[in-house]
Amino acid sequence: MTVQTENIPDRTAFARVYAEVQQFYAWHMHLLDSGAAREWADTFTPDGVFAPPSAPRPIVGRDALAAGAEQAHAELRRKGEQHRHLLLSVNVRPQDDGSLTVRSYAQIIATPRDGEPRLHLMCVTHDVLVRGADGQLLVRHRRVTRDDRT
Amino acid sequence: MTVQTENIPDRTAFARVYAEVQQFYAWHMHLLDSGAAREWADTFTPDGVFAPPSAPRPIVGRDALAAGAEQAHAELRRKGEQHRHLLLSVNVRPQDDGSLTVRSYAQIIATPRDGEPRLHLMCVTHDVLVRGADGQLLVRHRRVTRDDRT
Amino acid sequence: MTVQTENIPDRTAFARVYAEVQQFYAWHMHLLDSGAAREWADTFTPDGVFAPPSAPRPIVGRDALAAGAEQAHAELRRKGEQHRHLLLSVNVRPQDDGSLTVRSYAQIIATPRDGEPRLHLMCVTHDVLVRGADGQLLVRHRRVTRDDRT
Repeated sequence: MTVQTENIPDRTAFARVYAEVQQFYAWHMHLLDSGAAREWADTFTPDGVFAPPSAPRPIVGRDALAAGAEQAHAELRRKGEQHRHLLLSVNVRPQDDGSLTVRSYAQIIATPRDGEPRLHLMCVTHDVLVRGADGQLLVRHRRVTRDDRT
Repeated sequence: MTVQTENIPDRTAFARVYAEVQQFYAWHMHLLDSGAAREWADTFTPDGVFAPPSAPRPIVGRDALAAGAEQAHAELRRKGEQHRHLLLSVNVRPQDDGSLTVRSYAQIIATPRDGEPRLHLMCVTHDVLVRGADGQLLVRHRRVTRDDRT
Repeated sequence: MTVQTENIPDRTAFARVYAEVQQFYAWHMHLLDSGAAREWADTFTPDGVFAPPSAPRPIVGRDALAAGAEQAHAELRRKGEQHRHLLLSVNVRPQDDGSLTVRSYAQIIATPRDGEPRLHLMCVTHDVLVRGADGQLLVRHRRVTRDDRT
């Protein structure tokens, strides 16, 4: 733990960033799950990297990220399935350069139309978050590992 | 994101309200899941509205909310089933009138006595939260959509 | 709710501790799930007590806690199964003596190698957290109840 519990200003700063990361993740994943592929891609840095466990190589840059998300969402629409990505048990470690190293447990819940929801994948997400020009959080690098393959 | 990351007082205010909403949801749902139907109903405004996906029309007011929760809990007791409602991936948007618009991913977990837990329903919850006379959060309006029906 | 919404310093203090508890739980459970049994045991007080639902009597002290965690992890490795413990819907009640009473909903997710993840257990966790010499949070007492046995 890097949180200094005696240092009130530091602890308040940590609470600020912790709330902000959770809020960011909720918003970020709602964009993905609702098919707002371009808006989702814009929550990465322009050269953002996403290394998913299922892709042969990392996806780099907003155009490629948006295209990948759009394709995945179109496939789900065809199948009549709703996916939800939840980043939970969030551990945020502020770095000296102002970036945030964040590890979280990721659940992907899949629900077919008129069917039962199921826990589709259990993963661990390793993010590096940075701030954009207007101060908002952006994903600079994401690496995801699947529990069934580790 | 309405969070201004440069404005420290605003960001601290956001962290306060974000923690408060999560704490409120944990308490609110524990009341429901433990069968404290009246106490749960009292976490709505007196004219609070709950539009669940399964009811033909919204439930309005604390008496109707308490009656509905009591009936649902009695049914679960008969079946020997424990339900847990988790409001996760919380996105809080403070409004100009002091209310909070909150979207969250809702998991309902069902566990039969001596049986396996299952993800019963995956939903999205849209809340309007306001403050009561003594400042505590209350649900003024709740709309829930089920992923299997969207 | 003990949170006084008008009292800004108190509410800021609550936001600090709420973020800290969530961060602590994420870190604490990642230690357990990754097999860092000794490090996990060190997040309890030296005389920490863990009363799990499956053990005939509480586990007391860091050596016993580490031994139990190590044994459980070795068994999972043999089975080729990854477990994840998520403490969600956290309700934190600061006590007058400086300790924290925390109730949370605990999901244990199990994923076999090359298999489907499943919700293995749904539990409620009742913790008493205190601060160690350098201010960091430690579990002094944990009691867990299983939803399938209540």
